[in-house]
Amino acid sequence: MSEEYNLKENSAGRLVPTIINGEDAIPFQGVEKYKPNHNKAAPPIATCADYPADGNKLIKDLKTALLETGIKDGMTISTHHHFRNGDYVANAIFDAAAEIGVKNLRWFPSASFPCHEPIIDHLKSGVVHHIEGSLNGPLGEFASRGKMKGMGVLRSHGGRYQAVQDGEVHIDIAVIAAPCADPFGNANGLYGESACGLLGFALADSQYADKVIIVTDHLIDFPCYPWQIQGNYVDYVVVMDKVGDPEKIISGTTRITKSPDRQLIAHLAARFLRDSGIMKDGFSFQAGAGGTSLAFIDHLSGYMREADVKARFVRGGSNEFLVNMLKDGLTDYILDGQTFDLKGVESMRDHPNHADTSPFTSYNYHGKGIFATMVDAAILGATEVDVNFNANVVTHSDGMLLHGIGGWQNTLFSRCTILTVPTFRNRIPILVDEVTTMVGPGELIDVVVTERGIAINPNRKDLIDSVKGSDLPIRSIEELRKETEEICGGKPAKPKLGDRVIAAIKWVDGTVIDAVRQVLD
Amino acid sequence: MSEEYNLKENSAGRLVPTIINGEDAIPFQGVEKYKPNHNKAAPPIATCADYPADGNKLIKDLKTALLETGIKDGMTISTHHHFRNGDYVANAIFDAAAEIGVKNLRWFPSASFPCHEPIIDHLKSGVVHHIEGSLNGPLGEFASRGKMKGMGVLRSHGGRYQAVQDGEVHIDIAVIAAPCADPFGNANGLYGESACGLLGFALADSQYADKVIIVTDHLIDFPCYPWQIQGNYVDYVVVMDKVGDPEKIISGTTRITKSPDRQLIAHLAARFLRDSGIMKDGFSFQAGAGGTSLAFIDHLSGYMREADVKARFVRGGSNEFLVNMLKDGLTDYILDGQTFDLKGVESMRDHPNHADTSPFTSYNYHGKGIFATMVDAAILGATEVDVNFNANVVTHSDGMLLHGIGGWQNTLFSRCTILTVPTFRNRIPILVDEVTTMVGPGELIDVVVTERGIAINPNRKDLIDSVKGSDLPIRSIEELRKETEEICGGKPAKPKLGDRVIAAIKWVDGTVIDAVRQVLD
Repeated sequence: MSEEYNLKENSAGRLVPTIINGEDAIPFQGVEKYKPNHNKAAPPIATCADYPADGNKLIKDLKTALLETGIKDGMTISTHHHFRNGDYVANAIFDAAAEIGVKNLRWFPSASFPCHEPIIDHLKSGVVHHIEGSLNGPLGEFASRGKMKGMGVLRSHGGRYQAVQDGEVHIDIAVIAAPCADPFGNANGLYGESACGLLGFALADSQYADKVIIVTDHLIDFPCYPWQIQGNYVDYVVVMDKVGDPEKIISGTTRITKSPDRQLIAHLAARFLRDSGIMKDGFSFQAGAGGTSLAFIDHLSGYMREADVKARFVRGGSNEFLVNMLKDGLTDYILDGQTFDLKGVESMRDHPNHADTSPFTSYNYHGKGIFATMVDAAILGATEVDVNFNANVVTHSDGMLLHGIGGWQNTLFSRCTILTVPTFRNRIPILVDEVTTMVGPGELIDVVVTERGIAINPNRKDLIDSVKGSDLPIRSIEELRKETEEICGGKPAKPKLGDRVIAAIKWVDGTVIDAVRQVLD
Repeated sequence: MSEEYNLKENSAGRLVPTIINGEDAIPFQGVEKYKPNHNKAAPPIATCADYPADGNKLIKDLKTALLETGIKDGMTISTHHHFRNGDYVANAIFDAAAEIGVKNLRWFPSASFPCHEPIIDHLKSGVVHHIEGSLNGPLGEFASRGKMKGMGVLRSHGGRYQAVQDGEVHIDIAVIAAPCADPFGNANGLYGESACGLLGFALADSQYADKVIIVTDHLIDFPCYPWQIQGNYVDYVVVMDKVGDPEKIISGTTRITKSPDRQLIAHLAARFLRDSGIMKDGFSFQAGAGGTSLAFIDHLSGYMREADVKARFVRGGSNEFLVNMLKDGLTDYILDGQTFDLKGVESMRDHPNHADTSPFTSYNYHGKGIFATMVDAAILGATEVDVNFNANVVTHSDGMLLHGIGGWQNTLFSRCTILTVPTFRNRIPILVDEVTTMVGPGELIDVVVTERGIAINPNRKDLIDSVKGSDLPIRSIEELRKETEEICGGKPAKPKLGDRVIAAIKWVDGTVIDAVRQVLD
């Protein structure tokens, strides 16, 4: 089996496939090392002569649209995940594809969720050959058990844009679920019952796919403005009764963690930003919308008020807490990659300084710069961190692939990357000797904040100096690991893995940073 | 000489070059006839590893930036014309190029203006080989006299996007003058002393050029938002004292014509829209910012108020009169391609329904549709119209090339294209037997409104029927031509032309619709 991948050791010391689903792949060469020497993908040139002059691209239903695109065996169909676990569209696509009778499709979502469990039947029947995109929950377990025919490929948000832009992944058909659209195909996520804020994850798909289908449940007269997706890239527009479950697309509210340990971690991270001097006028940070992140934002906002400090920009996924910072004048801008609650959607719609960004502007490593490197501090999570500061976000220590990369790899390029992690979960250590899967190289991870103390990467002498004299509990990561093992009664059990590579993990430049193996029973 | 062009007759009966400056060109084949069968241009892939992590792309001055790009003999340098006759940047580029000592550059502006007269010295000295872009005023005269080494190529705004997108024109270095920018290269036209509203004419340049330089006189901290030009496409940022003359970039006010004839034409055009039934709830129109257009908008606004009719959208170039329509609720949106006065700039900055569009969204014929075909009526000018409704906007009947195409060819695709023209200017007939230069095919021109009556294209029986019974002065174009000649004392004098082709006129699909000949003394 391993011959079909031609495994080679990459610069991170990981054995990785150099052939993925029959195509050549380049092993990771180190951060900033791989230099592309070719040109971007070049989509076929369209002509207005082939499109309706009245701008009306409406077509009866999704199946008819797929037939019109010329869907064939082996094609690649892409979707976005702004609807998260409330998406109805991806399942509808592959149900339609099954009815049409095509086989061996590659599904290229920006992420998959538990709501996509029905795709497993299409994987079993051969309608879908394999999935390239994050494999959250049941699909991850299915793949981990070695049941998916092809190899999964996980990419960051920026890596996905890069792969499409660079022609590594050719999308035959992009299906873009849109909360609001016009018959020309202009679309946004700001209006309608399924409003999800923005549609940035579908940007590359719209620009580079051969055929683009917009699916909406809220059709308005031209122009649908702002046109986050531009109708000039769109072939067909389909109206469905419902594109998703609004309750699962956007939670009405996101909540601060109630766990005392996580509260402590959030507090320490906020104190670190304050006491290190990162928190100063004109600074910037990025944090997610998990309970710990929200608590962090809440604490930091308090410190900023106390010190009368204003950020130049904050990065989301946006949520009520970031929106309040903007409203209260604690930041000039929110530069947002996805909205996580209704307040985020409303703010993006109504506040002129709540900007929608895309994986192109924020994360595409194969551009002339990215926003991510200009962020002063990024607050992120991890499933594992090792004593060399390498981190994992996709597998657990039992080897199961249960999470996507999201923007995580991309945000590692911030000026100070802080992982906020408990030392253990369910009595299994998070701090380990070596991560099960290498997703982020330690040289990009600067600080690990746990409930038992803060470890600073020894490479970052400037950060170590910056908190000297503070009362922050600075400790070595080695020390934290040992203490964790004492509490948990030892190191995590070794995962039982087979030889088969069930997924490749791409770095932001398209090279392969690690491989995920089949989990044996 | 003609062998070097290999002249052939195109479907409009015009002899056109099939070789332009050494490259193959395709003769016009008729509206909607030519179908491209290749792929878009594919720019080289960049990597963040080669760009500063702090996002600071500032470089000392324009000359240094040009040297950094690797400027060489024969390269193509592009600029935009949002600063119109107040631009300081294009002259500064070629002065710097002359200092560097490069030769035979191709200047690819979206338009040139009388302020660019100093480029003539660079054409004479060989720094600039030729200009591809509109040749307004002195540069047009210079070319018309046969003094430019290479052949000029005139394209519409949409045709320019198409040419860049399709790889017909490869831009080595784009220099984008920006009223407001940040050190990363995000830029817009909304703020600063040189505010010009938007930067859409530079969009293709930013996306497809090998190297992109932003030049600004108003540098702000990241992020410059909205990022009409995305810093992710930008290599260098240069700060200049002044990028242009604000008074000439934007006129404080644009004025309605005072000429009784033009007032009459504007009035008739507005009545035509009203009486034909085109003016109805949800309709749309496009008009420019000349004195006749403004008078037209003023009249039409009055009719819309009387009839309680609201437009879905109006298209600019925006100006005070369109802005008032938006403010007064006479239209839902302004879809704007360039702002012509300060009210336009302010409205684009502050009104959420004043949208900035680009040649890509509005005009690029090699896309999956364009906004232009969805416009109910377009009100345009012309230098000549012939009895077959063919029209000219670039040359006068003496053969002198004095004007650019602008968006004119693109807007011909509206549902009802109306030319508002006086029957004669300076005692020279505008209505002629055959246009000197074919820029727009008669089949796309529906109505000609003059001070002596309205001619409707016989092909548009629906329009003829729509105004039956009205008191509009509907006449045949032949009749209007005859009357004009009687007033002027005959047909226009034949131009004295040489054999040499001094410029090619492209159609929206990149084919050559006509050739412009040298004017003899």
